[in-house]
Amino acid sequence: MDAAVAYAREHAGRFLEELKALLRIPSVSTLEEHDKDVDAAAEWVAENLRRIGMEHVEIIRSEVGHPLVYADWLHAEGKPTGLCYAHFDVQPPDPLDEWVTPPFEPTERGQNLYARGAVDDKGQLVTQLKALESLLQSDRKLPLNIRVIYEGEEEVGGERISEFVMKHPERLKADFALISDTEMFAPELPTLCVGLRGMVYTELEVRGAKTDLHSGMYGGAAPNPFVALAQIINDLKDRDGKILIPGFYDDVATPSDDELKAWKKLPFDEGHYTKNEVGASTLVGEKGYSTLERTWARPTLDVHGIVGGFTGVGAKTVIPAKATAKISMRLVPRMEPARTFAQYKKYVESICPKGVTVDVRLIHSGEPSLIPTDNAWIRASVQAMRTVWNKDTVFIRSGGSIPIVGEFEKYLKIPSVMMGFGLPDDGLHAPNEKFHIPNFHRGIESVIRFFEEAAKS
Amino acid sequence: MDAAVAYAREHAGRFLEELKALLRIPSVSTLEEHDKDVDAAAEWVAENLRRIGMEHVEIIRSEVGHPLVYADWLHAEGKPTGLCYAHFDVQPPDPLDEWVTPPFEPTERGQNLYARGAVDDKGQLVTQLKALESLLQSDRKLPLNIRVIYEGEEEVGGERISEFVMKHPERLKADFALISDTEMFAPELPTLCVGLRGMVYTELEVRGAKTDLHSGMYGGAAPNPFVALAQIINDLKDRDGKILIPGFYDDVATPSDDELKAWKKLPFDEGHYTKNEVGASTLVGEKGYSTLERTWARPTLDVHGIVGGFTGVGAKTVIPAKATAKISMRLVPRMEPARTFAQYKKYVESICPKGVTVDVRLIHSGEPSLIPTDNAWIRASVQAMRTVWNKDTVFIRSGGSIPIVGEFEKYLKIPSVMMGFGLPDDGLHAPNEKFHIPNFHRGIESVIRFFEEAAKS
Repeated sequence: MDAAVAYAREHAGRFLEELKALLRIPSVSTLEEHDKDVDAAAEWVAENLRRIGMEHVEIIRSEVGHPLVYADWLHAEGKPTGLCYAHFDVQPPDPLDEWVTPPFEPTERGQNLYARGAVDDKGQLVTQLKALESLLQSDRKLPLNIRVIYEGEEEVGGERISEFVMKHPERLKADFALISDTEMFAPELPTLCVGLRGMVYTELEVRGAKTDLHSGMYGGAAPNPFVALAQIINDLKDRDGKILIPGFYDDVATPSDDELKAWKKLPFDEGHYTKNEVGASTLVGEKGYSTLERTWARPTLDVHGIVGGFTGVGAKTVIPAKATAKISMRLVPRMEPARTFAQYKKYVESICPKGVTVDVRLIHSGEPSLIPTDNAWIRASVQAMRTVWNKDTVFIRSGGSIPIVGEFEKYLKIPSVMMGFGLPDDGLHAPNEKFHIPNFHRGIESVIRFFEEAAKS
Repeated sequence: MDAAVAYAREHAGRFLEELKALLRIPSVSTLEEHDKDVDAAAEWVAENLRRIGMEHVEIIRSEVGHPLVYADWLHAEGKPTGLCYAHFDVQPPDPLDEWVTPPFEPTERGQNLYARGAVDDKGQLVTQLKALESLLQSDRKLPLNIRVIYEGEEEVGGERISEFVMKHPERLKADFALISDTEMFAPELPTLCVGLRGMVYTELEVRGAKTDLHSGMYGGAAPNPFVALAQIINDLKDRDGKILIPGFYDDVATPSDDELKAWKKLPFDEGHYTKNEVGASTLVGEKGYSTLERTWARPTLDVHGIVGGFTGVGAKTVIPAKATAKISMRLVPRMEPARTFAQYKKYVESICPKGVTVDVRLIHSGEPSLIPTDNAWIRASVQAMRTVWNKDTVFIRSGGSIPIVGEFEKYLKIPSVMMGFGLPDDGLHAPNEKFHIPNFHRGIESVIRFFEEAAKS
């Protein structure tokens, strides 16, 4: 048996305990009160990298934002270089009252490990760490050169890593990137993600009166920012989900016929997806597109929450002075975030109801990506997963956004291999997020095998 | 000079300090954590009633809700009996960061006293208390019989007082009621309010998926309750504010030609109202109606806030499982709250978008009122205010709701005199609520004179 795989199996229990230690750090990058926790997660990752034998371990801090963690091992002369990427920050855990066990007290139930960040993305980050450890500790060397760049801002836009990639491409020089932040299409089905949606996250603030007003005294004459906001949101999409922003669909690239054909062969049970995964009475979406097309190849617009007004228990009869909606759009290949945001802003300003003003703010954005599949690294990954999972890999896209993929392509000129081990029901960003424990361990083995295969190129 | 008025002037400074003491009690009836404070306000009021010489002072508690305070003085044989009403609970103070000085630390700035409840309604409650004190302490008796019923739930629907009025009308037997919870049309302009809007306060909950979902993974296929809620709110009113609920306007009573003519003569500066009082660029509202008609004689619908989703700082890319809007309607004379709520609920259910479910809940409601003006108590009030303010009284309506007025009419068969001393810019329910201090003192004198005049009937 492969020595590194044998090492990984021998230390499987400890690997899981190490993941739990990282999960206990509430590194919520979107909430200022957790800044120190994001830093603590960076320290934990750096210390682990040092301990397993990686070199030049460095926590890269900027004046603002959260740190990056860099490390490398570059002694495989004549061999290719891989760049490992993952993130150690997590989404906020709210709504807290829906968690069965607390989000930062990782808990095993059945074959799953429950915690915020279990699968997105600490569990997957640790698959890389433990694959590197298994190779370094079993053989005192890696089969290829490796650089590691981990970030603490993925959930909040990843500005620091973007800047770093743009300003210091030489420090990340590599032949390919391994991105561990995606999921498998179905249990037991090895999957490579080859397309990602981009993202434009905005705040739309509507202001009416200068101060909150009594809805009895002023109701009927004073503008109500919540009503105005509802009218704006209503006018952003038609009832089938088609977005009404002029020009919004101009640059949308249609998937190739081959890709669409391959999607139709995927084991997708729409009934199960609707009732069990989404848990809704029915799906919604643009007419004329399948669910996979709607979530992978069509742009969308969602409202995440509305700040302002009275939201306590009971009744307060106020016409609020302002209301602020958090609204994001997902972009598909060939769409440009800056152009989309400009179209959105212009349209919202043009439909602003009487009596209120709007302020449209860009919070962050990321490019969509489409990865070519005819290269040695994709082939190495397919071969590695065939060994571990005993199955052929399917190529899918994801509706989510990993802006760094586009930036690696643009500034480092390298392709990414998005090999991930999440499952569709893992509950990313939701209460009771989990990682399927067997996938954690097979993920480690898959990364080991991938590095061994990639070293042959 | 009138002995009671002289007493009031002599003790003006202490009266203001007593009001401040009551204002320091954060008796927010809509928030459970303030239950003890509402009780403390009841105790304060009861103690004050005892001290000034009122009899049979009693705090009436129920198993649920907030207490009532009752007192009487019934030794003016052959004289009429007045029933005094006011409330000692207040609205929540949020948004806290917009207060110049803390809401429960009453602060004088210029001629105003700033605090939550300054004008709504503790300041006005204390005008009654101090008028009674001035009469009782200067003359050892009142010129007429008085019962007092104060409540601690006005801002949360007033269920306890409604029940009490319905079940024990004999304990509140009187010839008229004095309601101190309204405002003057303009500074220096004595005003009686003779019409009130009713109210239906609801929560509209929209549910989509069973749990919060990642907007990348599921955006485009999963129903978004915030978008659905925006569509429902959009469909509740047209862009001019006309409410689209079928049958909503069926029972609306049109004001008489005389009343409409009188409103046109009121010193209403629409430009000042728009820019300075409301503080908006322009007013909104139904076509074909003046601003006074829109706020006094037309029903309205307002959204007060939307609970759910992500409302923290920064970005969270979630499709929330649910969104709950707080929505109320103001009703005008002849509309019935139960009928209006049924129409609203049926309509909302009928326009519920695909993929989500709605739950429409009634939080509380109150009847609209229209008071006849040709009775001795209204004439006594006009005469009293002529003495104090040296001006003729104007008759107005209020867009707000004081359900107890309708209940006094229905169960006690008595008319109400709504004589209040708030000013249009006092900021009811808003940050920096205030009471104009000269109006507090002249309010006390007006109530003294009113009791003296009413005693002659």
